[in-house]
Amino acid sequence: MNIHAKRIKDLQLLLKQHRLDGLLLGRTLEIGYFTGFHLDDCVMLVTRAGAWVFMPRMFVEQFKETVTFAAPVAEDLDRAGRALAKAKELKLKRFAFEPDAETYSRGSAWRKGGALEHNGLTGALRAVKEGEEIEALRKSCRIAAKAFGLVRPRIKTGRTEMSVYRELEDVMQAMGAKGPSFDMIVAFGPNSAKPHHATSERRLKNNEAVLLDYGCLYGHYCSDITRTWFHGRAPEDFKKVYAIVAAAHKAGLAAVRAGVNANAVDAAARGLIVDAGYGQYFTHGTGHGVGLEIHEFPRVNAPSQAVLRAGMAVTVEPGIYLHGRFGVRIEDSVLVTKTGCEILTRTN
Amino acid sequence: MNIHAKRIKDLQLLLKQHRLDGLLLGRTLEIGYFTGFHLDDCVMLVTRAGAWVFMPRMFVEQFKETVTFAAPVAEDLDRAGRALAKAKELKLKRFAFEPDAETYSRGSAWRKGGALEHNGLTGALRAVKEGEEIEALRKSCRIAAKAFGLVRPRIKTGRTEMSVYRELEDVMQAMGAKGPSFDMIVAFGPNSAKPHHATSERRLKNNEAVLLDYGCLYGHYCSDITRTWFHGRAPEDFKKVYAIVAAAHKAGLAAVRAGVNANAVDAAARGLIVDAGYGQYFTHGTGHGVGLEIHEFPRVNAPSQAVLRAGMAVTVEPGIYLHGRFGVRIEDSVLVTKTGCEILTRTN
Repeated sequence: MNIHAKRIKDLQLLLKQHRLDGLLLGRTLEIGYFTGFHLDDCVMLVTRAGAWVFMPRMFVEQFKETVTFAAPVAEDLDRAGRALAKAKELKLKRFAFEPDAETYSRGSAWRKGGALEHNGLTGALRAVKEGEEIEALRKSCRIAAKAFGLVRPRIKTGRTEMSVYRELEDVMQAMGAKGPSFDMIVAFGPNSAKPHHATSERRLKNNEAVLLDYGCLYGHYCSDITRTWFHGRAPEDFKKVYAIVAAAHKAGLAAVRAGVNANAVDAAARGLIVDAGYGQYFTHGTGHGVGLEIHEFPRVNAPSQAVLRAGMAVTVEPGIYLHGRFGVRIEDSVLVTKTGCEILTRTN
Repeated sequence: MNIHAKRIKDLQLLLKQHRLDGLLLGRTLEIGYFTGFHLDDCVMLVTRAGAWVFMPRMFVEQFKETVTFAAPVAEDLDRAGRALAKAKELKLKRFAFEPDAETYSRGSAWRKGGALEHNGLTGALRAVKEGEEIEALRKSCRIAAKAFGLVRPRIKTGRTEMSVYRELEDVMQAMGAKGPSFDMIVAFGPNSAKPHHATSERRLKNNEAVLLDYGCLYGHYCSDITRTWFHGRAPEDFKKVYAIVAAAHKAGLAAVRAGVNANAVDAAARGLIVDAGYGQYFTHGTGHGVGLEIHEFPRVNAPSQAVLRAGMAVTVEPGIYLHGRFGVRIEDSVLVTKTGCEILTRTN
């Protein structure tokens, strides 16, 4: 069965489990996930028995050429309204939309039309990767990992952060990536202590930290990897912090396994950093799901209630940030398996 | 005055005009527009007298380094709720959010907390470009236009659409672009008749149409340009359709001027195509605003009620699509002036 047709079937099963008759979808990303058709400004209705995509008239011919398992409906004006009318025509009783994903305008029109609010259905499906999407994700991560081996030896005193950014981009594109998977971070010296530093024209000096947080987009799938090292002779404080983060990263990876709570992975990594006395400098969660989006379900942090399942892809990325001095973060993207995880961004 | 501080002032004036005391904002793009600080998961409150950005604790130090005209508030849990609490603490009476921009979840929390719905405030500000953003937009468009001159001579029989896509990307990046401004379209032969063709591995044959719809991102600003030609000896039907679209494009450009209704630009371009008997094959609007987003306010189509103002940037892009045969679209990004427009993507 076509992978998109199968995803619609999976969603239909999920609808049944949640005692819903239908789901209204408005995000390009999700409609692309269920149809392979990535076009803005469409709306989709999936019921237990069928699927319809409401789209500008000009897309219809193109849609019919590639999609057989969902019906196109030409609508140049009010697509959200047209989808709602279809739900009513089908006499759906319990149909929903995802309030975290829709705009307030569309959501409130649907709410007024009787739709329920139900988050997390598409997120749960998207979190578990299978078949060709695992291959795309593996390839995306392999390209990012290989880029490290090529670019790291070329990062020398005097290079600007931005020139390294562009080189990472070029090297990954030469290996088939479509582009960066997010606004990548190249941070030298004290900039490495900013968890979301905006890559700048700053030049690398002798004896300072280098942090690269980057990844690429390959076949719609995002990779995410971070490496930190000291350019020059590392002082004791850097070595100490690096060793703690490396141990936390290792502990986090060791905790990943199908059936485990995502918050246990966070606890495993965080525990080491807290015990070493740096808890207040680890200012973010340990990781996040990665796939069609760079940040997706599940979150790997303390409040997360998600349970890891085989086929989920998540990052493990503890860090310690010493403001004005340096920061260390070590991150890999991994695929959850029954017995542990496959590290997708391995660089050694 | 710092450009971001000025934008906040402009928003405060707009709030006064609309008899509002405050506006709640949740989109990264808009918070970036008003602060220069482009980070996800923040929420902003602008009142007539002040501005606050509610952000994860880890961003605060970084924010304070660059922003002096808005106050950071560390909030690791419920930022939407915290912003609402601030609005109440300030005893704001008429404060709003933009329902087309916010998620349903955030919007409904704000709605329940007494916020009003008010679309279009930030869109109206963003539509009129000034100072350094005009420069960034000009540069973005100039890079795209120059790329055409470099890449077109290299498009020969046997090249794949995807290889041309990558070359456009590379050439624009070499000129300083950060990347493509959207999922660019390279379409050969009958693919050119699909207004949103997904660039493929199809190879160019002798004697068929070539359509490039592309652009780049430079300093956060998007460019958008389309060129179509016939590779080989153009048959009469292509020449005829091309001449009609070129005349429509020219008529559209001639209609652009501050004070004119955006729908009059659509009517000018569309009229020529309708009169030539191809009205049913021009299946989309004539254009759209372009800036921080590839599609933004104002729309240049029949239903648009927007009035063009000096400093707005819009596209003019009529097209005729003959399914299974070929399509022709000609597009430029232009800057609206008092007396007409400045074509930003001129290629000759």
